Amino acid sequence: MSRAYNFNAGPAVLPLEILEIAQKELIDFNGTGMSIMEHSHRGKAYDAVHAEAVANLGKLLGVTDDYQVLFLQGGASLQFSMVPMNLLGAGQVADYVNSGAWAGKAIKEAKKVGAVNVLADTSKEIPTNMPDYEALNYTPGAAYVHVTSNETIAGTQIQRFPRTAAPLVADMSSDILSRPLDLKQFGLVYAGAQKNLGPSGVTLVVIRKDLAERAAATLPTMLQYRTHLEENSLYNTPPTFGIYILMLVTRWLLSKGGAAGMEKINQAKAGKLYAAIDNSGGYYRGSAVKAFRSAMNVTWRLPSEALEEKFIKEATALKMIGLKGHRSVGGCRASIYNACPMAAIDALVAHMADFQAKNG
Amino acid sequence: MSRAYNFNAGPAVLPLEILEIAQKELIDFNGTGMSIMEHSHRGKAYDAVHAEAVANLGKLLGVTDDYQVLFLQGGASLQFSMVPMNLLGAGQVADYVNSGAWAGKAIKEAKKVGAVNVLADTSKEIPTNMPDYEALNYTPGAAYVHVTSNETIAGTQIQRFPRTAAPLVADMSSDILSRPLDLKQFGLVYAGAQKNLGPSGVTLVVIRKDLAERAAATLPTMLQYRTHLEENSLYNTPPTFGIYILMLVTRWLLSKGGAAGMEKINQAKAGKLYAAIDNSGGYYRGSAVKAFRSAMNVTWRLPSEALEEKFIKEATALKMIGLKGHRSVGGCRASIYNACPMAAIDALVAHMADFQAKNG
Repeated sequence: MSRAYNFNAGPAVLPLEILEIAQKELIDFNGTGMSIMEHSHRGKAYDAVHAEAVANLGKLLGVTDDYQVLFLQGGASLQFSMVPMNLLGAGQVADYVNSGAWAGKAIKEAKKVGAVNVLADTSKEIPTNMPDYEALNYTPGAAYVHVTSNETIAGTQIQRFPRTAAPLVADMSSDILSRPLDLKQFGLVYAGAQKNLGPSGVTLVVIRKDLAERAAATLPTMLQYRTHLEENSLYNTPPTFGIYILMLVTRWLLSKGGAAGMEKINQAKAGKLYAAIDNSGGYYRGSAVKAFRSAMNVTWRLPSEALEEKFIKEATALKMIGLKGHRSVGGCRASIYNACPMAAIDALVAHMADFQAKNG
Repeated sequence: MSRAYNFNAGPAVLPLEILEIAQKELIDFNGTGMSIMEHSHRGKAYDAVHAEAVANLGKLLGVTDDYQVLFLQGGASLQFSMVPMNLLGAGQVADYVNSGAWAGKAIKEAKKVGAVNVLADTSKEIPTNMPDYEALNYTPGAAYVHVTSNETIAGTQIQRFPRTAAPLVADMSSDILSRPLDLKQFGLVYAGAQKNLGPSGVTLVVIRKDLAERAAATLPTMLQYRTHLEENSLYNTPPTFGIYILMLVTRWLLSKGGAAGMEKINQAKAGKLYAAIDNSGGYYRGSAVKAFRSAMNVTWRLPSEALEEKFIKEATALKMIGLKGHRSVGGCRASIYNACPMAAIDALVAHMADFQAKNG
């Protein structure tokens, strides 16, 4: 097999080693004569997978006793509603930062639930940008502060999280475990798995336990964090196969030195790609301001849309997949999550040099 | 490999042929150099999978233009809330039948949303039972009528669905596509995939399109059927791998003659197992009344709990997995969904005869 260079924004590339293990075990998991997909979510075989996924994430994220790891469904899109439904009480206000498309969706859903204060809006800025998070005018007594750690479409990323008086809630869908995190700084962190953690269909939530007690008992049972906290994410049938793949990914992350190890690798990958952009004499232009450049989603433009189209078409022929920018912004985007190998970056950088030489 | 006889209640057995295809394609889907898990949900490769899953379900369920197939997340447990949130308006009442544990959960969640009228309650009856659905006192002008087509724990199944004036909503999690269905009789049908359709993490909903228009636009976007109907279940990232397996299962179902073909096979399987119970001279006693015996979950007792424990232990040693009744009711249960092969039934029936001869 000739493996593609996968730059998809999500679902995204997974470590080949993980896929090989999953393939080998697919029909007969650990000699049980069944696929892990066929095991009961209340049986021993799956129990061990679930427990290891929780334990490994505990190590990788520095989870202490006052926090809990949850596996939910519905992606970040459902978290946009669950966060305010659980944490935003009547008469309270929640602070949000509108840093782009994903933050904008979170704000839209929160406004359906309660009072929202938008502290800053950089969502329309070109080059794409983020505000100075440490200089924002946070609301005293806010229920929580919501930020989006990485904007996949804009290619921007928070470099330093603010220390906030209210619990900090972060959508980390596109950069979870790509770098170390001081969990104590957050009240709640959530992430769809399909970028850095595994396949789509699993949502990771890490919650400070006391926050789960805020929700009214009249909320639908499935939409209360409390339910999933009390039942260790086994209130109903979880997406077992997705959690199994996520567990394998956490093993792989631990073998790479965890979040700190990944950060070094990710900085090297992103550094090489941004250097190719910056050293092109203006032929390639980064879409994001340098101070907020994302190490996960690298966005850039060529001199014309026609050249962008040609660049992407030729890249596709070289098995580089997913380089088209989001339809809402155009241009090029390379999503280079944890599992994207350096070989993919090297191939892309070579194509960029070659393309410029021929079309510059 | 020695394949287990898998009688799990869900997640449950999948067709071996399907698992073999999934294994073969796991790393390189259709020569793309990527796993289907790594493909974008907006790319060509996944598009074809998604479209085939919808089309095959259309054929299998007889979906006409006024209905739509949706793939959601959160299982039946989230549908327990989504149904009333979308369909039960202020000042309206919804009719429910409490036929067991699952119906009871649906009622509990509906009561959080609006006015519920419980038409009948057979949930505490031993032997397990269902009411006469055609003789119930349905509420004139009800928003909808909710029934549970098969109670997995009790081992009971509706044999004939009532024709109701209000839209009939059915939780078919544990018997969807195990027998033909006249979709026109229903307003909405839902089913977690993990019993008859695929792995956990995908929820099938088939909705009459006009019903999706009932929901208030102020509902969370993810919890409106309208959203998923308008976006063909691609509003956000769907659980792509689960839908891929489900698509393979629908191909397998079509190859078996669809729902009518499955019904014949399922009747033969259930018939053999119930005959073994009924012909044991009272040593094995069916837990459900004969008129509502389920063809999916066969429940029975032995003369004592000690013998039940011994029976299950010896079955496990013979690689028959998942025969323990639900902890809330005890006894034995064999879940014999579509993908459970006749060989598993034969092995179980042989064990029953052998065990009775030695312990009768």
